[in-house]
Amino acid sequence: MTDRDILETFENPSPKRDYVIQHVAPEFTSVCPKTGQPDFGAIEIEYVPDALCVELKSLKFYLQGYRNEGVYYERAVNRILDDLVAVLKPHWMRVTGRFSPRGGMHSTVTAEWDQDEE
Amino acid sequence: MTDRDILETFENPSPKRDYVIQHVAPEFTSVCPKTGQPDFGAIEIEYVPDALCVELKSLKFYLQGYRNEGVYYERAVNRILDDLVAVLKPHWMRVTGRFSPRGGMHSTVTAEWDQDEE
Amino acid sequence: MTDRDILETFENPSPKRDYVIQHVAPEFTSVCPKTGQPDFGAIEIEYVPDALCVELKSLKFYLQGYRNEGVYYERAVNRILDDLVAVLKPHWMRVTGRFSPRGGMHSTVTAEWDQDEE
Amino acid sequence: MTDRDILETFENPSPKRDYVIQHVAPEFTSVCPKTGQPDFGAIEIEYVPDALCVELKSLKFYLQGYRNEGVYYERAVNRILDDLVAVLKPHWMRVTGRFSPRGGMHSTVTAEWDQDEE
Amino acid sequence: MTDRDILETFENPSPKRDYVIQHVAPEFTSVCPKTGQPDFGAIEIEYVPDALCVELKSLKFYLQGYRNEGVYYERAVNRILDDLVAVLKPHWMRVTGRFSPRGGMHSTVTAEWDQDEE
Amino acid sequence: MTDRDILETFENPSPKRDYVIQHVAPEFTSVCPKTGQPDFGAIEIEYVPDALCVELKSLKFYLQGYRNEGVYYERAVNRILDDLVAVLKPHWMRVTGRFSPRGGMHSTVTAEWDQDEE
Amino acid sequence: MTDRDILETFENPSPKRDYVIQHVAPEFTSVCPKTGQPDFGAIEIEYVPDALCVELKSLKFYLQGYRNEGVYYERAVNRILDDLVAVLKPHWMRVTGRFSPRGGMHSTVTAEWDQDEE
Amino acid sequence: MTDRDILETFENPSPKRDYVIQHVAPEFTSVCPKTGQPDFGAIEIEYVPDALCVELKSLKFYLQGYRNEGVYYERAVNRILDDLVAVLKPHWMRVTGRFSPRGGMHSTVTAEWDQDEE
Amino acid sequence: MTDRDILETFENPSPKRDYVIQHVAPEFTSVCPKTGQPDFGAIEIEYVPDALCVELKSLKFYLQGYRNEGVYYERAVNRILDDLVAVLKPHWMRVTGRFSPRGGMHSTVTAEWDQDEE
Amino acid sequence: MTDRDILETFENPSPKRDYVIQHVAPEFTSVCPKTGQPDFGAIEIEYVPDALCVELKSLKFYLQGYRNEGVYYERAVNRILDDLVAVLKPHWMRVTGRFSPRGGMHSTVTAEWDQDEE
Repeated sequence: MTDRDILETFENPSPKRDYVIQHVAPEFTSVCPKTGQPDFGAIEIEYVPDALCVELKSLKFYLQGYRNEGVYYERAVNRILDDLVAVLKPHWMRVTGRFSPRGGMHSTVTAEWDQDEE
Repeated sequence: MTDRDILETFENPSPKRDYVIQHVAPEFTSVCPKTGQPDFGAIEIEYVPDALCVELKSLKFYLQGYRNEGVYYERAVNRILDDLVAVLKPHWMRVTGRFSPRGGMHSTVTAEWDQDEE
Repeated sequence: MTDRDILETFENPSPKRDYVIQHVAPEFTSVCPKTGQPDFGAIEIEYVPDALCVELKSLKFYLQGYRNEGVYYERAVNRILDDLVAVLKPHWMRVTGRFSPRGGMHSTVTAEWDQDEE
Repeated sequence: MTDRDILETFENPSPKRDYVIQHVAPEFTSVCPKTGQPDFGAIEIEYVPDALCVELKSLKFYLQGYRNEGVYYERAVNRILDDLVAVLKPHWMRVTGRFSPRGGMHSTVTAEWDQDEE
Repeated sequence: MTDRDILETFENPSPKRDYVIQHVAPEFTSVCPKTGQPDFGAIEIEYVPDALCVELKSLKFYLQGYRNEGVYYERAVNRILDDLVAVLKPHWMRVTGRFSPRGGMHSTVTAEWDQDEE
Repeated sequence: MTDRDILETFENPSPKRDYVIQHVAPEFTSVCPKTGQPDFGAIEIEYVPDALCVELKSLKFYLQGYRNEGVYYERAVNRILDDLVAVLKPHWMRVTGRFSPRGGMHSTVTAEWDQDEE
Repeated sequence: MTDRDILETFENPSPKRDYVIQHVAPEFTSVCPKTGQPDFGAIEIEYVPDALCVELKSLKFYLQGYRNEGVYYERAVNRILDDLVAVLKPHWMRVTGRFSPRGGMHSTVTAEWDQDEE
Repeated sequence: MTDRDILETFENPSPKRDYVIQHVAPEFTSVCPKTGQPDFGAIEIEYVPDALCVELKSLKFYLQGYRNEGVYYERAVNRILDDLVAVLKPHWMRVTGRFSPRGGMHSTVTAEWDQDEE
Repeated sequence: MTDRDILETFENPSPKRDYVIQHVAPEFTSVCPKTGQPDFGAIEIEYVPDALCVELKSLKFYLQGYRNEGVYYERAVNRILDDLVAVLKPHWMRVTGRFSPRGGMHSTVTAEWDQDEE
Repeated sequence: MTDRDILETFENPSPKRDYVIQHVAPEFTSVCPKTGQPDFGAIEIEYVPDALCVELKSLKFYLQGYRNEGVYYERAVNRILDDLVAVLKPHWMRVTGRFSPRGGMHSTVTAEWDQDEE
């Protein structure tokens, strides 16, 4: 199971200003829990940092942790959001997964978290 | 006639959070009730789940049920919305049908349903 | 002169729900009233139906009625809107004409009608 | 089974010149003989006519004949080529089928016939 | 009937060099002789001039002559080629017509003429 | 210096309805006042007419008036807006200039005018 | 190690005609033998069949066999070609791998096999 | 270290109107402070000028000052915003950096400054 | 009249190897000799150098010399080829002009020169 | 000065077969020897290996060696070709440099080397 402890952070260089950071990882792959077949997609992460930013290399290793794990699209996107929110404690974050076609259909899942709505 | 009972569901893995799921089925085909000629299009389904998510394979079979059925664009989109709302009881749902050119014109039909407006 | 009586309608299959129908006709042609030269463009019609929907084949014939008629862009778009509103009595309608370059410039005209603003 | 007798022809208006006619039908659908699931694709037909050209409406009906028939990609393309060669007796013909993704892979099959190689 | 006498020419400014001139007219329209419905397409003309080049404005008027004429795709392309070859007597010429979809299919017709093959 | 008197108008055919007219001129060129080098760009004009619409041919001649004039991007866009507002007295207008790369950078300038904010 | 015995075949339905079959698998992934990091790419297979065609599902499983295997781009493409030639004994085959950027560079490897050059 | 004093300005030619100026510099490069490897990206600057506009050539030289400097994406975007705000004192400004893929991921950082929020 | 003496050269750094240099100038403009209206287009120059290469800045000034000159497309392309061949004496050269639409038609002119055919 | 000794190689895994390897490096930058301004472009390397393949990371470092070096486009492409041919001794190699616009013009240089022509 992918462990959120793999995620490393660095100090936000401009903490007094609200600004948006986006990382797009087009090489996400996991395994369908029903068929055991690999799934492919792109994970897009957008957030407004508070004190911490996520370090890119550790984010890559964290996402690679899903490579041989069985997980539904809906659960993968929500878990990535939960893990990053827990580690970064940002002002706002959105995670989007855009998945490759299966059975002639392609799917997108988008989940958002907002400090002010907690 | 396509039967909504063919649709299967699974439990929403993140029911406490409002998030959006989108499925795009670019291989939709039905039959024009006036001419008997096949129509082609893409069906896009977006929703905010409550307790249930639609299972992808059953959604594919449900949409295939229109393959040899005579139905106008406007009716097809509204019926797909009615069926999915009845089965999933989501917070919000939108169904869009983008249809291939007929007589030099192409058409799009978009219908929305909102729990709060019922 | 194109006659709006050529437009045929059918009953809205889902009259209790507000939804949007869009038809795009990329093969519109008329004649410039100043130079007598043919103009070309695409006409896009979007509307929220009330009791009636426009039948596609009759819409095609209606638009073909402009083929040999001298009319400015601005007037063509407004007249199509007037004719369709008169026949369909929709909740809302927008007509957009996107015209091919003339003298190195291309033009777009967009007119909207809203039941609530009458 | 689709019958080649459905194909109609008209006289080549320029029989003394070798020239190329191409028809592209992006709305081809058949059924996978193994899974019973629908397949989708585009059929492209290119030929140099001799005495006869294929009539477009009859070509559309001929291709619609595959709608509920179980046939492999490789066999569909070769049979369309055989049928059109038998009816048109052209100088040269090529049929290409470009099929939508199945199992994450998409396929193209291209078969050619040349009068001089018979 | 469009008359080739409408085509005007000017003297080739570089007659000792073989070079290629291409004109693309994306606003071609004629009428289907079978259904009476308008057809739309783009006409592409490529040639290696000998003594004469075609004047652009007269070419535009020549192509507009097809606007209300009933003619099959195959015949239109071959006749445009015949007319331009008769007027320009070029070293080589190719005419391509790319036509808009009818009945879900789009068509391209390409005809070539070569001085050395006469 | 380009003179706004060159701009001609015609009567708005639908003065009781607010609607949007857009003209795009991709062949704008002027001269950099600093280096004397030519600049290139596209000018996009959008407006809601009151009593008058701008006549297209006169707009083309007006924009050609900048061809050999030294003017900064920012000044050109604002002057075009001032001239058109003075002549048309529209309800609303926006002028956008999208300029080709200079020194590896490309620039866009967008200025708006609103009757209600005067 | 991926085993070529996983590849299944079916009889060529048109063995007397030379024609081309292409399969594109955009979801190929393996592991870099130097860094242990995952690599991603698309594998394109083109061939002229003799007696046998490759069955699509078995091809998918064969390519999935590289998922956790350490292999250089150059070796992967050549081995896929060797395996498919051994099993299908085609008249001709080409395998192309287009790989995602690593270190700011993306790579393509193309290998061909021809019966007549053996 | 890049010095903001390199930035030159000129007087806003239309100071009474709020309008937007955008400059896009697709050839930005700096050095990763962690690995010493070069980073590449595009810097987009949008602002509503008050009394001053930035002179394009000096902006180019200012951005070239990052060429051999070690700086994180997040810090580069915020520092460019700080420097331009200090020199131009605009009504509003936004700086966006879109960076090329590193480790299979690409990143975008967007920071905004508003006179009214100071 | 544009003078070819404005063209400057530098020594080919690799004279023993035949290789291809291409320059594309998308900001070419001249004046139509018939109507006096400006024409726009892109000029593409490809050549295999012998002893000399053309210096880029002088090529830009040379092409700017056409800005206010009345010249047909066919003549402009042939004259640019003649001038560059006279100055560079290359092994081979091709000049292509791709011109913006006039009267709904766009044109391309391509002329080639080969040392071995003189 | 960039030193070709930085280039590392590995053994060709399939030396008995002629096949093509392509690497594209879109982040190439050097300095204009005339103006001192940075140049940007993409370097594409294609080759048929003999006994050796170039190792990707060393190729990246080799190309980074041009970052602060003054060199014309024509010379850069030819020197990269010379260095790679000297180290790899391939059967065939082609190097293409596609450079970003300078003065409104963009340039491409393509040089090839063939074992059989030495």
